[in-house]
Amino acid sequence: MTEPSPAPSATPVKTIAFVLYPGLTPLDIVGPLQVFAALADLVPGYRTVVVGERIEPVESDTPLSLAPSHTFEELADPYAVIVPGGLVPTLAAMADEELLRNLREIAARSRVVGSVCTGSLLLAAAGLLEGRRATTHWMYRDLLTRFGATPVARRWVEDGHVITAAGVSAGIDMALHLVGRLAGDGVARMVQLFIEYDPEPPFGPIDWTAADGGQYAPFARQLLENALAGHPALLAQLSN
Amino acid sequence: MTEPSPAPSATPVKTIAFVLYPGLTPLDIVGPLQVFAALADLVPGYRTVVVGERIEPVESDTPLSLAPSHTFEELADPYAVIVPGGLVPTLAAMADEELLRNLREIAARSRVVGSVCTGSLLLAAAGLLEGRRATTHWMYRDLLTRFGATPVARRWVEDGHVITAAGVSAGIDMALHLVGRLAGDGVARMVQLFIEYDPEPPFGPIDWTAADGGQYAPFARQLLENALAGHPALLAQLSN
Repeated sequence: MTEPSPAPSATPVKTIAFVLYPGLTPLDIVGPLQVFAALADLVPGYRTVVVGERIEPVESDTPLSLAPSHTFEELADPYAVIVPGGLVPTLAAMADEELLRNLREIAARSRVVGSVCTGSLLLAAAGLLEGRRATTHWMYRDLLTRFGATPVARRWVEDGHVITAAGVSAGIDMALHLVGRLAGDGVARMVQLFIEYDPEPPFGPIDWTAADGGQYAPFARQLLENALAGHPALLAQLSN
Repeated sequence: MTEPSPAPSATPVKTIAFVLYPGLTPLDIVGPLQVFAALADLVPGYRTVVVGERIEPVESDTPLSLAPSHTFEELADPYAVIVPGGLVPTLAAMADEELLRNLREIAARSRVVGSVCTGSLLLAAAGLLEGRRATTHWMYRDLLTRFGATPVARRWVEDGHVITAAGVSAGIDMALHLVGRLAGDGVARMVQLFIEYDPEPPFGPIDWTAADGGQYAPFARQLLENALAGHPALLAQLSN
């Protein structure tokens, strides 16, 4: 099945593609997807798609299952591709050669390559972050060095055509930034208004003391070992 | 099919149920679901479920389809039920008697009844907000008065056992507040750390000038008329 040809137009529609795979963290994909879907609703020239290996629901790390709109084969060249993250299933997917091959192929056809949370570890495992500054979920930031990337502790990091966001909810901020760059600050502010993104975290900003002190490092390490139990070479590459 | 009996325990597991229906805004459900799923991962005694009329994917207002884990019939008494919102499909669902009956039944069996965005209009249409203070997406806040509720312009509003959040992304803040009340501030802060919810909206807080000036009122009205074209009596109730 191929996509229908777009109607002739001076400005072709820009497609923002979100990658779906089993076990991911739904907020990683839904945060930026909702931002770009609002962009597509508010101004002409954009559309969003969700792309997966098959058109059928996959499980997430919550009781919600998610199904894509397109397979990788069905997708014409997107403007941007965004790869969401997750915990053990995403860490395990660093060894999923079929997914990594699909990511390399879609990234080569995209003008912008993005990720949310540990989605950047999949880009890194696919060889797409070598020599670049990048970020990921705080628990796994140091792993980026093992793939030749330079970790940066920021909400989102841009290096050339690659943009990576910090953990889970950071994808919303990254997507609003991208909308501003694509369609202007006024449109980005309108998207922000429609998704009523006026955050009031009830306990204020994050207290980084425990995370910075390494309290969660053994937990993060255990999850990584569980995820890559069947892939000792990769686990060794990601260890000291 | 009935749920397996829980293992005997001094403290029974509290179930947080999220309602799924066609056409909803996925961030409305996924924001608070991710917060409560993290709670369930981090401390014992909680679980999340997603409940719908049938166990099959429904479309959302993005290209992502979503499937629940349980039907309404399968769900034992939850501790809390959260109803997400959306635009035209949610406004149309104010006339969906089967969904409203399911909401009344599940609400009657829940200790806490919550909503995100226009999900509160479904609670209102089901008769569950009469005489209560409540909020919803800013575009439809005034509609709450038509159902006997008192609209309040806040990120979330609690009145007795009913808690309603403002538009779309506000469900994350409301859920963190609820986690703090259920499991303590320390656990809520840990959940916040794990979903790295340290918001940095790239254009700052929302500028409410256009919304407060009524610029979007005709647009909001048009969507409501489209949604309720087949239900003139309800549309009249929601008009002057």
